[in-house]
Amino acid sequence: MNNFDFKNPTKIIFGKDSIQKLEAEIPNKAKVLLVYGGGSIKKNGIYEQVKSALSKVEVIEFGGIPANPEYAVLLDALQVIKEENITYLLAVGGGSVIDGTKFLSAAALFKGDTPWDILSKNIRTEVGMPFGTVLTLPATGSEMNSGAVITRKETKQKLGMGGPGLFPKFSILDPQVIASIPKRQLANGLTDAFMHVLEQYMTYPMGALLQDRFAESILQTLIEVAPRIIKNPKDYVAASNFMWSCTMALNGLIQKGVPTDWAIHGIGHELTALFGIDHARTLAIIAPSHYRFNFEAKKDKLAQYAERVWNIQEGSIDEKAKAAIIKTEGFLHELEIDTKLSDYTQDFEGTAEEIAKRFTDRGWLGLGEHKNLTPDKVETIVKMSY
Amino acid sequence: MNNFDFKNPTKIIFGKDSIQKLEAEIPNKAKVLLVYGGGSIKKNGIYEQVKSALSKVEVIEFGGIPANPEYAVLLDALQVIKEENITYLLAVGGGSVIDGTKFLSAAALFKGDTPWDILSKNIRTEVGMPFGTVLTLPATGSEMNSGAVITRKETKQKLGMGGPGLFPKFSILDPQVIASIPKRQLANGLTDAFMHVLEQYMTYPMGALLQDRFAESILQTLIEVAPRIIKNPKDYVAASNFMWSCTMALNGLIQKGVPTDWAIHGIGHELTALFGIDHARTLAIIAPSHYRFNFEAKKDKLAQYAERVWNIQEGSIDEKAKAAIIKTEGFLHELEIDTKLSDYTQDFEGTAEEIAKRFTDRGWLGLGEHKNLTPDKVETIVKMSY
Repeated sequence: MNNFDFKNPTKIIFGKDSIQKLEAEIPNKAKVLLVYGGGSIKKNGIYEQVKSALSKVEVIEFGGIPANPEYAVLLDALQVIKEENITYLLAVGGGSVIDGTKFLSAAALFKGDTPWDILSKNIRTEVGMPFGTVLTLPATGSEMNSGAVITRKETKQKLGMGGPGLFPKFSILDPQVIASIPKRQLANGLTDAFMHVLEQYMTYPMGALLQDRFAESILQTLIEVAPRIIKNPKDYVAASNFMWSCTMALNGLIQKGVPTDWAIHGIGHELTALFGIDHARTLAIIAPSHYRFNFEAKKDKLAQYAERVWNIQEGSIDEKAKAAIIKTEGFLHELEIDTKLSDYTQDFEGTAEEIAKRFTDRGWLGLGEHKNLTPDKVETIVKMSY
Repeated sequence: MNNFDFKNPTKIIFGKDSIQKLEAEIPNKAKVLLVYGGGSIKKNGIYEQVKSALSKVEVIEFGGIPANPEYAVLLDALQVIKEENITYLLAVGGGSVIDGTKFLSAAALFKGDTPWDILSKNIRTEVGMPFGTVLTLPATGSEMNSGAVITRKETKQKLGMGGPGLFPKFSILDPQVIASIPKRQLANGLTDAFMHVLEQYMTYPMGALLQDRFAESILQTLIEVAPRIIKNPKDYVAASNFMWSCTMALNGLIQKGVPTDWAIHGIGHELTALFGIDHARTLAIIAPSHYRFNFEAKKDKLAQYAERVWNIQEGSIDEKAKAAIIKTEGFLHELEIDTKLSDYTQDFEGTAEEIAKRFTDRGWLGLGEHKNLTPDKVETIVKMSY
């Protein structure tokens, strides 16, 4: 097990009808910017629940944060924060709204020349404007971590940011919100959380026995609840375990003391930037090729995953490992998540070369847990995913 | 899954040679009370490492906190805190030293008449004097939670206390400290952590799928590392997983959203108070009888534990559940932990009646996850454990 530090101060308020507890979490004298997305919260009743719980504080609204939160839109919100002397942010939405709110939290108190520096120069945020979240779409885990990914359309970039100042003060997780989420988004959320776990688990065995079992626990739970959620998103047992699994998949716990990969995300982000493919689906496109290309380096862990998560007990290490990749593809296909780039676009020629060139230009010369996935290897992985 | 709140702000600093990181965690201007136990830290090198890391702050020492931290001794430490104008506490030890330090953290800022009220009136501590810990004995999980148990010899009482102000600011976990722990204490630590998980898990199935799997993960890891630790406490992989498992067993995570039992602890504390039996061993004495007495209420979960933790796949629910109790006893016996009261004392006659009477006098009329273990049932369980 590697040495690690772990601290996660976010307060989770989990369960039925928990949105009404919002009132107790926001200081009375706060001036709140309520940040949300495309307006689905006005159709499913969440907006009314939030407004009702906020009746005692002053609230300004900023809707319209798009999926893959867009820098230009966030700059508009930042202007509102400054003009209105906002003191507290409340994200009501999924990962995109929460990530956008984290950018606003950082940018609102940023002392540098331009908030773009936070992203382009990768400046850690030690103290941000305080914010809470009401999660409406389980998937990214952003509700209990301190990271965010922001998109800039004009340059087709997706860049990460973070820092200890960007943990939400609180996050409200009411699994009942899942009932009104469209199937496509539920499938994306299940895939996203599953891939988050794999990025932190599918490397090589290194004696972090408890972390491995926790990661396997989340994978097993997602596999168990996925068909139930897709069939009936009002199934509270399935919904609550789905929601808590998504949070635990990326709140820092399972990555402590272990090597992590994240190459799938690195490559996947480019597919979103180039083609606008849903984030989760880009991961599903890249993961199988990635595991096949890096088979020798990952086969021991793939075999462990085969045994413990998929109950594949027969065969050699190689056979189990290969079977596990096929099982993973099968799981995604059951969710109606396609796993080839050509399922999403016919305009894929040249994509591998383009992504490799971007990584070279950016100086990303070694991805993955061994930092040895050079741009030419990335090119091969992307071609295998066509 | 039940509704829950979860917040755990303790910073964990985990790994080899992490004691030297102490310096960065304590404010420069702090006046520190270094709290420790019987002096083993002066033999195993931990004392020197701590003192070296604290060279830049003013430190007063208070040693001699006994196992089952004693109220009278803690009052002496409290006097030192007041006389010396201490501003920060550092516990260097196991659960007893850390629990004692939590009492001091609460008592140092307590405004009431007597600090005994914190225990006797069960007053929650919202803000305590800040403190950190250097863990020298993995077992209780006190290094990452906000609870403590304090003993008062003159009245033969063990009472709990807690509150959000009693999370350590930081805890340093260096698994290398395990190398010098005597076997008896290692066995106690393994047993204690195992029983902590069981108290939060062995109730009835209620759809908290992820929490169940996390609990099972800790149990599986402890079972896997226990023989390695006992054979060679310098085995770093085993030691690090043992240490992290003990912390995760009682940091609040696995109890969220599920019913919990804690009757074994309630009864076990009385055996320590009456006979001075090591805390972990009292749990080993009570658990098997408790599970046999409450078999019908717990058999579904016992069978799940049988299947997932002990890989018992054959037989009916009842057969699996019974086999799991026997497996648990076998695990404890492998650790040389006896599971009958008569293994520890021949003076056991009347113990069951005495404990039942204490519970009646104290108004503890219903223990366990169903709050239906009345004193007469407790009496039967204790008799079954003779």
